[in-house]
Amino acid sequence: MELVSQNKVFGGAHRRYRHRSATLGCDMVFAVFLPPQALAGEKVPVLYWLSGLTCTDENFMQKAGAFRTAADLGLAIVAPDTSPRGEGVPGDPDGSWDFGLGAGFYVDATQEPWSKHYRMHDYVVNELPALVEAEFPVTGLRSISGHSMGGHGALVCALRNPGRYRSISAFAPISNPTDVPWGQKAFGHLLGPERIGWLAWDASVLIAGSDERLPLLVDQGEADSFLESQLKPERLKEAADAAGYPLTLRRHAGYDHSYYFIASFIDDHLRHAARALEIA
Amino acid sequence: MELVSQNKVFGGAHRRYRHRSATLGCDMVFAVFLPPQALAGEKVPVLYWLSGLTCTDENFMQKAGAFRTAADLGLAIVAPDTSPRGEGVPGDPDGSWDFGLGAGFYVDATQEPWSKHYRMHDYVVNELPALVEAEFPVTGLRSISGHSMGGHGALVCALRNPGRYRSISAFAPISNPTDVPWGQKAFGHLLGPERIGWLAWDASVLIAGSDERLPLLVDQGEADSFLESQLKPERLKEAADAAGYPLTLRRHAGYDHSYYFIASFIDDHLRHAARALEIA
Repeated sequence: MELVSQNKVFGGAHRRYRHRSATLGCDMVFAVFLPPQALAGEKVPVLYWLSGLTCTDENFMQKAGAFRTAADLGLAIVAPDTSPRGEGVPGDPDGSWDFGLGAGFYVDATQEPWSKHYRMHDYVVNELPALVEAEFPVTGLRSISGHSMGGHGALVCALRNPGRYRSISAFAPISNPTDVPWGQKAFGHLLGPERIGWLAWDASVLIAGSDERLPLLVDQGEADSFLESQLKPERLKEAADAAGYPLTLRRHAGYDHSYYFIASFIDDHLRHAARALEIA
Repeated sequence: MELVSQNKVFGGAHRRYRHRSATLGCDMVFAVFLPPQALAGEKVPVLYWLSGLTCTDENFMQKAGAFRTAADLGLAIVAPDTSPRGEGVPGDPDGSWDFGLGAGFYVDATQEPWSKHYRMHDYVVNELPALVEAEFPVTGLRSISGHSMGGHGALVCALRNPGRYRSISAFAPISNPTDVPWGQKAFGHLLGPERIGWLAWDASVLIAGSDERLPLLVDQGEADSFLESQLKPERLKEAADAAGYPLTLRRHAGYDHSYYFIASFIDDHLRHAARALEIA
């Protein structure tokens, strides 16, 4: 694991690391925020943040304004990249931004040429936490959150893996990917043409069959230009209500899909995680 | 004035506008944050933020994490670009990033080919506030702040124009530009080879002759890689002490030159401005 850069921020440390991922078959960069408590030797819990389409590890760390409250709470944050990268990793054959590089959709691909590298679910759920827990002063307690494609990722990672996370939250998640263009394009490539194979990667399907009940907070801006075509939080709400899953879905008038929206409400998500992680 | 984009954030509005600048002879984009109080019709004071080398209006607005506290205080923030831009505006003949486009140094050039467009001081002090005060629900009360080249800009704009600002603050300002490579390169181009002509654009010179006494806060990271070669805050401190100017210079162990440093302390700068603007 190689330190790429570090910055002191709110008394804590923002660091970027490069490491060889066996899961993804390529080098990966991720970012970590260690709060002052961790730098002083205390073990702290971790919030995993999954970013949206086109992002890297940097977007959240630069734009979300999360560190003041994370430092207060004593909460570490880990932000992985959004896809495998590098030589030999294929991107979208159409060259567009909504699939492939920067758009791995947090699933484990079954189809050629994707299955060699596009295993972001396994990476986020297993390899990265194992690395983080071996290398940093953190407890084994984890929460997960994300935005858009990463909101889908956060939901699916937690719903597929009972026992691994204490809470879930999301901003403007792709809530029913099997029924919207972004999800259908990505799943078609990564999982093949059979829609039945996609269902185990769709939060609105998974939530119906979940035995676990994690605190789940979803924020959605009503001026989000992707709301009706790609996000469909009402599908998640219907499925959660039917299953008795404790979803708090908040709709915010006037807010869009940007990090300005995320920054406005990130503190609520940090406190949501902190309560479940027993530090608030 | 044409609206380029807008985002709701912390109950206020972040907006980007394009307008024709008569002072600079080109189209310019600037950003404004209007707090909720202004959107509700109340007139609010304005903090002008001047960014550093290579920046546009976007860096501060995306990365500083300023809006939560600005919304609480009822403080508008205006962030101009860092140089004239567009067709016919010359850049650095060497093509480097430390002079020219994105690096106008907030002076009024006297030399060809710069004097036609490079009049960022006049733009920031006169044209932009006149536009802002005509178009938005703001009072005529102004404070000014900035980072690095923009810290120099904030200091010089206020020190040269008594009565126009209520307070000054800066992060890692180029404090004595006539004596460091960045300043010497820019001033040599913009103001000509005679060093005597540079002195009226150097905060450590101007502060000695200032009749006004504004609250002045400067934050400097001690792990800033430009500290000794380009910034030299001790020069400003010596000049301020000799002149009896009320400078609070804070040095912060471990912090670098990045927006992670700015985000860590921006709330103090907002409150510093708010006190002088009589809203805190």
